[in-house]
Amino acid sequence: MATHQPPWTLPARSPDEPVLKVYNSLTKTKNEFIPREGRHVKWYNCGPTVYDASHMGHARNYVTQDVLRRIMTDYFGYDVHFVMNITDIDDKIILRARQNHLVQKFRSETQALSTELIAQVVDSWTSYVRSKLAKGLLPADVPASGAEWQSWSELTKKAQDTAWKAECLTRDEKFDMHLSAASRTYSAIEVAQGMLKSGHTSTDIAHQLIDEAADVLALSLDQQYGATVTDPSISRSLAAFWEQKFFEDMARLHVREPDTLTRVTEYVPEIVSFVERIVRNGFGYEVDGSVYFDTRAFDQSKNHFYAKLEPWSKGNKELLEEGEGALSNTTGRRSAADFALWKASKPGEPSWPSPWGQGRPGWHIECSVMASAIFGDNMDIHSGGIDLAFPHHDNEMAQSEAHHDCEAWVNYFLHTGHLHIEGLKMSKSLKNFITIDEILQRYSARQLRLSFLLQLWNAKVDFTDALMTGEVRNIETTLNNFFTIVKALINQARSDGPSVSGRHGFEAPELELTDALHQSQSAFRAALCDSFNTPLALNVLRELVSRTNVYINSRGKALNVGVIERIARWTGDMLRIFGLGEGERAEIGWGQDQADGEVAVNREEVLMPYLRALSSFRDGVRQLAISQGDGAAKEILKLCDKLRDIDMVPLGVALDDQEVCFAPDGKALVKLVSPAELIKARDEKKALAEAKAAKKAASVEAERQKRVQKLERGRVSPSEMFKPPNVPEGTYGSWDDAGLPLTDGEGKELSKNQTKKVQKDWTVQKKLHEDYLAWKQQGEGQ
Amino acid sequence: MATHQPPWTLPARSPDEPVLKVYNSLTKTKNEFIPREGRHVKWYNCGPTVYDASHMGHARNYVTQDVLRRIMTDYFGYDVHFVMNITDIDDKIILRARQNHLVQKFRSETQALSTELIAQVVDSWTSYVRSKLAKGLLPADVPASGAEWQSWSELTKKAQDTAWKAECLTRDEKFDMHLSAASRTYSAIEVAQGMLKSGHTSTDIAHQLIDEAADVLALSLDQQYGATVTDPSISRSLAAFWEQKFFEDMARLHVREPDTLTRVTEYVPEIVSFVERIVRNGFGYEVDGSVYFDTRAFDQSKNHFYAKLEPWSKGNKELLEEGEGALSNTTGRRSAADFALWKASKPGEPSWPSPWGQGRPGWHIECSVMASAIFGDNMDIHSGGIDLAFPHHDNEMAQSEAHHDCEAWVNYFLHTGHLHIEGLKMSKSLKNFITIDEILQRYSARQLRLSFLLQLWNAKVDFTDALMTGEVRNIETTLNNFFTIVKALINQARSDGPSVSGRHGFEAPELELTDALHQSQSAFRAALCDSFNTPLALNVLRELVSRTNVYINSRGKALNVGVIERIARWTGDMLRIFGLGEGERAEIGWGQDQADGEVAVNREEVLMPYLRALSSFRDGVRQLAISQGDGAAKEILKLCDKLRDIDMVPLGVALDDQEVCFAPDGKALVKLVSPAELIKARDEKKALAEAKAAKKAASVEAERQKRVQKLERGRVSPSEMFKPPNVPEGTYGSWDDAGLPLTDGEGKELSKNQTKKVQKDWTVQKKLHEDYLAWKQQGEGQ
Repeated sequence: MATHQPPWTLPARSPDEPVLKVYNSLTKTKNEFIPREGRHVKWYNCGPTVYDASHMGHARNYVTQDVLRRIMTDYFGYDVHFVMNITDIDDKIILRARQNHLVQKFRSETQALSTELIAQVVDSWTSYVRSKLAKGLLPADVPASGAEWQSWSELTKKAQDTAWKAECLTRDEKFDMHLSAASRTYSAIEVAQGMLKSGHTSTDIAHQLIDEAADVLALSLDQQYGATVTDPSISRSLAAFWEQKFFEDMARLHVREPDTLTRVTEYVPEIVSFVERIVRNGFGYEVDGSVYFDTRAFDQSKNHFYAKLEPWSKGNKELLEEGEGALSNTTGRRSAADFALWKASKPGEPSWPSPWGQGRPGWHIECSVMASAIFGDNMDIHSGGIDLAFPHHDNEMAQSEAHHDCEAWVNYFLHTGHLHIEGLKMSKSLKNFITIDEILQRYSARQLRLSFLLQLWNAKVDFTDALMTGEVRNIETTLNNFFTIVKALINQARSDGPSVSGRHGFEAPELELTDALHQSQSAFRAALCDSFNTPLALNVLRELVSRTNVYINSRGKALNVGVIERIARWTGDMLRIFGLGEGERAEIGWGQDQADGEVAVNREEVLMPYLRALSSFRDGVRQLAISQGDGAAKEILKLCDKLRDIDMVPLGVALDDQEVCFAPDGKALVKLVSPAELIKARDEKKALAEAKAAKKAASVEAERQKRVQKLERGRVSPSEMFKPPNVPEGTYGSWDDAGLPLTDGEGKELSKNQTKKVQKDWTVQKKLHEDYLAWKQQGEGQ
Repeated sequence: MATHQPPWTLPARSPDEPVLKVYNSLTKTKNEFIPREGRHVKWYNCGPTVYDASHMGHARNYVTQDVLRRIMTDYFGYDVHFVMNITDIDDKIILRARQNHLVQKFRSETQALSTELIAQVVDSWTSYVRSKLAKGLLPADVPASGAEWQSWSELTKKAQDTAWKAECLTRDEKFDMHLSAASRTYSAIEVAQGMLKSGHTSTDIAHQLIDEAADVLALSLDQQYGATVTDPSISRSLAAFWEQKFFEDMARLHVREPDTLTRVTEYVPEIVSFVERIVRNGFGYEVDGSVYFDTRAFDQSKNHFYAKLEPWSKGNKELLEEGEGALSNTTGRRSAADFALWKASKPGEPSWPSPWGQGRPGWHIECSVMASAIFGDNMDIHSGGIDLAFPHHDNEMAQSEAHHDCEAWVNYFLHTGHLHIEGLKMSKSLKNFITIDEILQRYSARQLRLSFLLQLWNAKVDFTDALMTGEVRNIETTLNNFFTIVKALINQARSDGPSVSGRHGFEAPELELTDALHQSQSAFRAALCDSFNTPLALNVLRELVSRTNVYINSRGKALNVGVIERIARWTGDMLRIFGLGEGERAEIGWGQDQADGEVAVNREEVLMPYLRALSSFRDGVRQLAISQGDGAAKEILKLCDKLRDIDMVPLGVALDDQEVCFAPDGKALVKLVSPAELIKARDEKKALAEAKAAKKAASVEAERQKRVQKLERGRVSPSEMFKPPNVPEGTYGSWDDAGLPLTDGEGKELSKNQTKKVQKDWTVQKKLHEDYLAWKQQGEGQ
């Protein structure tokens, strides 16, 4: 008898198993992805400069990076350390914060509209038009200086000419914005002048002028007083405000928070040391308190290469200038390609101490320092928007390699592609600038994410309404319908219980469908291995779903629910990996143990407001029944109305009392709707009822007035009606007992006709006076 | 200027990256895991034989396999196809179903207790004791036949002797069960005999005897009538019942459903073809309508090896016999090691047509056939409990390799270890048999799973209360506390907003803690790669948590929330991978889009029952107020009570009306509690009230009876009271007008004393009779 097991053979690895390759900007090709330390991935993603609301460009970039990160973590199972920075020192932040501050200060110091105030705004406007518009327009027919005020009307007339405007836009892309700021200020000045002329000088009017002219005033105030703004918290709190807004937007887009967040303001001492080392290593030099990177020295030294990502952009002045910022003074550099590591701060600019005097970090150095602080001299992945490739990322790498004296600081550089809106670059002047807040009012976060997933992460995305209402809605509907039908089929099967048919329902169609699932799983993996090809991967899911729908429709009663349930589960899992699903894996903790009552807690949260309303209604009814006994019917109806109109409305419960002819049982229709909608409907109904009541009250009052007027005519007794003061002194001379005149003012007896007339009037007044007296008696006239 | 990027170097793979190895029963060592087709894993897991409630042994096996499957899918990212069978043809199922059926039939045909019925039970008892107990006892002093009835008392006396019982148990492990069945029946017979003697013969009494004697009767009825049970649905519906119970238990244990479920009853035609092919290939032979596997032929043929898992168990008769089942007849086999592929069915056994006559599949063949139907001639993983290794799994492999003519049908065989309870094998006789239902009343599914995770999946687990209340509760509490404190710290940080401190808080302690996380991630991976070493992996998490707690406690106000948040997120994710967490990844679909109203849908589901109750209450109040006007107070109170006692109770809402002195505002206390609890409380209260009312009614009735008795005493008029029939004929001879007796029966005048006595009685009766007449007149006595 054998006492040993037979030999066992290790199965052969299948030869065509795909490996993950990523499109690497350092090679402009797809390279196999190999982290340096096993499954641990060091990943640095360039974060936002926080000085304004996040827009569609941010959405595209951060959602896309989130998708890549989720695939790496949840699908490929890497242990990713995802680091992101917040740029909270930047010329844009400094300027925005300083200008906001100065305009607010000016506003709070202004008490009244005055000739001086208007003159100051006119001055600001003139220099604004001079500096801003000079670049873009005023070719010949509009004087460039002095006479702007007079030629403004000509200018605005010209602005109707779209060809001329388009030409201006090519010279300055923000031309439109400037024109509109100048125009708004011009109108405000005209209004203010009118007000002043007619003697209106209130604080409100003065502030209105300042608010309308804020963009224009900001510039001249900053020129005059910018240097006096020294409190560092002014720019820090602006940055903190927009940082919080940024993360709120990201949360709404279901973008996972970075594992580690770094802020430039928190790393200044490290930046100073880092720059010192670069200088010591021979790749930096000081000029007037600023320190520059010596690109030529770096490029010429052994083992170093400047601008690895875009060597062809090395001399691009425009890109370099933009990278240096609006507050830069770059005179004295050894080469136009050299960039600031450390900037001397002028008065009005935040500053930190350094061996080169008070100053602040250059833009590029921050990422080098913070990423090195966390990762050291190498990282697996660096990512960011493609517009940052040069000079920002190239400079980052040069600095870090100069500092660490290493050859490759970054192994894989992943750049998100550009975003266009309806075929055009997004810009405020093109009126196609969309904030995240705005886009989320039109589409859901899932739809937005789908639109990005449907295109390659590193390709240019053209975001169009056609895409959103076409392909995106299409795939969303397809998937929703699929999950709905599968769930329904599963529920049906569950309620049927285990099959006792004696047949397994795993025939050729089921084997084929199962095979299709396995092929889809392979194809899905291959697509993601091919540099995260999400459009292809989504297509794999879409085709599997459509294949399954065909099976469901053709197989009829004989269908095998288990097979399609498995497909639906896998499809849902893959969608969740893309961040499209609810039920996030990455929640804190492991949730409440059900035995400890998680369900009960949620139930309580949802229900209690309703139950409180219900119970207090019942309390009221009970109290009435107990205390008032039989006289409560009217009060009960009031309680019913209160429950419907006051208590239930903000809870989103509509109780529609039906007409008795439709619902003789007196049953109200209960509906669960949006509280906002319900409040609106109730308030509208109330307003309508009030308006109707007011109208009715007005007409009642009018009737009453008419009646009173008529009755008032009877105030004078007929015996007094022909005597002063009811007739002019001297109209009549003598009267009979009833007060009927006998002679006129001159003692002459009245004519027959005259006597007839006064007698008739007397009779009429007698009736009126009687009515009047009766009315008085009833106390109605009081 | 450079126009080409510099060369790029592929990073070197780190040399010590662990690969997944699994403990493979085919080698009794850990082998590297390599699936045949890329990341697709074919996995067959032996499912249950469904004829009784699932117990702790099932829990251990299926939870453990679920853990392995989750790790393979959710952690290692394999595309797993997990197939499981349900064994619904089996001798145990047939016997259980047939016996249940026969006892129920016998019961429903029995109308009364009779001498014959008792005799039949006594006969059954005698043969039960003879056959069952003979094995384990009756060495000398208890006769083995005939006299059992008389010697039963001696036997039961002996059963008090634990040493003797222990000896019996070694001979038959179910001795205790048999003894108790026999004893229960014996008592029932005694009771029945007494009843019959005192003339009680009702159906209830007869059924009581049958119910008590069911275990004993089942055997003799089956012997007599088993062969007449031919309806195949009898055993199929028993199996379906227990299958459903099994999956309900699995769901409570958070065990994922198999991807594909196969039932033996659904694969009989495939089994027949499979067996035919084995016979054709020369590895099977027929004997009397049964087909056996020729182990010797197989073992001796080239490229085949019989009993790869346990070659040393080849001749183990006991294991082989158990594998063949209770209804087997194995005479005529070529070797004692040969096992049935196909069993000829005797009358009373379900059967299907085959080339060898009516029959049914052997046990082992089903898994070979069903796994082959789904996977073909190879699978990556076969799993099951270790007790199935021989002969079941060895026979399965032999059959499949004989059928497919292949060398290796299974690449990796994963066997779950045994389960002991408090150091002993679980068994009904040892009284340590625990069903899943029972254990879940003592511990949560999470605690149970933790207890299994704390030991190696392929090791013997000793399940003890000490483990559950010690290590398991310990680790659960540690993790709960950790998540609670981290969540609190995060909330605090969130409400503080972005830091403006100007320091990054990423100093040496944070770098060290971050490094500890990364080392934990590597160690966790290494543990799972080392054949799913979950105790080690859990320990990695536990140590990381304790390291983080030290950091939190020592770092004080300076702590970096981001670092610990990241640790908590990762820890939670890993726990979820083990199936310990809520928020399941593998849900159907991707959930409702929030924008499309997921919240609204759930809200509706939760709320509508409550709102309907609320609204209908309000409807009632309104109707009353409208129609009945002022007379409705009482009705309103009734409605209030109905809402509280009828409508809200099953919804789990308690409305506690407070005493007016405690809540003068008349407000009820609203509580959300378990509906079951509420129903119970309400019914108890009702029962109490009813009992009180019944008691009161009884006492009122007793009073009434007493009064009636008294009044009835006045029924006889005083004028008649001394005449027959109110006195015996001949008591008195003559009476006066008022009916007072004058002479006695013998004509003798009454004595003075006698006269006095009758006058007194007469007076009393007169009063009684007047009362009686008055009562009659009021109609009360009717």
